[in-house]
Amino acid sequence: MDSTGHIILPEPTLRRLPWYLAYVDTLEQRKVQNVSSTTISKALNVDSSQIAKDLSLLNLKGKTRIGYNVSAMRKALSAFLGFKDSHGAFLLGAGSLGAALINDTGLSNYGLNILAAFDCNPDLIGKEVGGVHIYDINDLPEMQKKTPAKIAIITVPAENAQDVADIAIEAGIKALWNFTPYRVLVPEDIVVSSTCIYANLALIYNRLKNADQSQGFCDGNP
Amino acid sequence: MDSTGHIILPEPTLRRLPWYLAYVDTLEQRKVQNVSSTTISKALNVDSSQIAKDLSLLNLKGKTRIGYNVSAMRKALSAFLGFKDSHGAFLLGAGSLGAALINDTGLSNYGLNILAAFDCNPDLIGKEVGGVHIYDINDLPEMQKKTPAKIAIITVPAENAQDVADIAIEAGIKALWNFTPYRVLVPEDIVVSSTCIYANLALIYNRLKNADQSQGFCDGNP
Repeated sequence: MDSTGHIILPEPTLRRLPWYLAYVDTLEQRKVQNVSSTTISKALNVDSSQIAKDLSLLNLKGKTRIGYNVSAMRKALSAFLGFKDSHGAFLLGAGSLGAALINDTGLSNYGLNILAAFDCNPDLIGKEVGGVHIYDINDLPEMQKKTPAKIAIITVPAENAQDVADIAIEAGIKALWNFTPYRVLVPEDIVVSSTCIYANLALIYNRLKNADQSQGFCDGNP
Repeated sequence: MDSTGHIILPEPTLRRLPWYLAYVDTLEQRKVQNVSSTTISKALNVDSSQIAKDLSLLNLKGKTRIGYNVSAMRKALSAFLGFKDSHGAFLLGAGSLGAALINDTGLSNYGLNILAAFDCNPDLIGKEVGGVHIYDINDLPEMQKKTPAKIAIITVPAENAQDVADIAIEAGIKALWNFTPYRVLVPEDIVVSSTCIYANLALIYNRLKNADQSQGFCDGNP
């Protein structure tokens, strides 16, 4: 826990928490009231002692022979993961992937609030996509003063990723969610998370070619 | 190399190859003819000896004082990653995320060919999204006989992920691309790749709360 009382978790734990949340969501819909770490373990293929350890970090304790209260677990996970808060974001690149993300209503359910989109294509600037206005990328610093965002979502072509990242960081953006396969270089205090969609495709294609390869895999640590 | 001459690479290497491809794409657009592993290293923040090792697995060798030929490197990476081939896929779940993926023209550039979409919502069945017909999920086995696919993209709500995965595998699908936060359990010979979009959001939110946290991070191994 840091000085503000915020719990800092290691990345592997943070990546498992959404699995637990998705699982208890299904339990709650099925009106299940309690669940043991053994049952969660079987469903998610995660070691039960690891589950108990992860949940104890959120002050969730299971009761002997009863397990965890499903409703309390869902609430604690959702609150901790920040999915109930609203997080302002700018979308950099209003092409097909950017438009797809704006139109994905799932993101707003998970607390992401896309305030504005930016592009350098004159055919797109001034238009709207999914109710979000598209501005000139050069207007980002001015927009950041009016309706500040902390997160920039990078959905430009890979060759423009570094340039738009630099503009966003210069304007005060604190976190980049990079959907391009380009590795953006950033100052140490900037958070970068990459969703390498096409890298996942490369993995699938390669593993499919290899009939002997029997191991499943996932992005992030198991 | 396996008996068919196909090169089997470890996952960390496979995850780096799309970074190299994205980088040499930008070089080729800038009419750069040759590039050294040192230059690639600076641009991507990957150790130059690691780069040389990765590329040697694809039989790419740099020349002393000249480096790698950009055009040859781009062709070899693109061919190896399978982005030039066509890979048939079924989309399971034609909701907002599924529709977003169908409308992302980037996926077809990377060789993914979505043959049909499936849903259990009567309001969606029989309609089209982005030129792709939406069928009843129960018609998947029949469709697999007519226009076989190897890949199923899972974009249903998390609580339905296991059910549709079971239907797809029973019908002969060999690889699952899971966009839900639910951990699907599959037989050993089935390839599973997860793109945990919402897990990335959880990571960003958590790291943003922690001003002291200075490390960038990425899905997959570095």
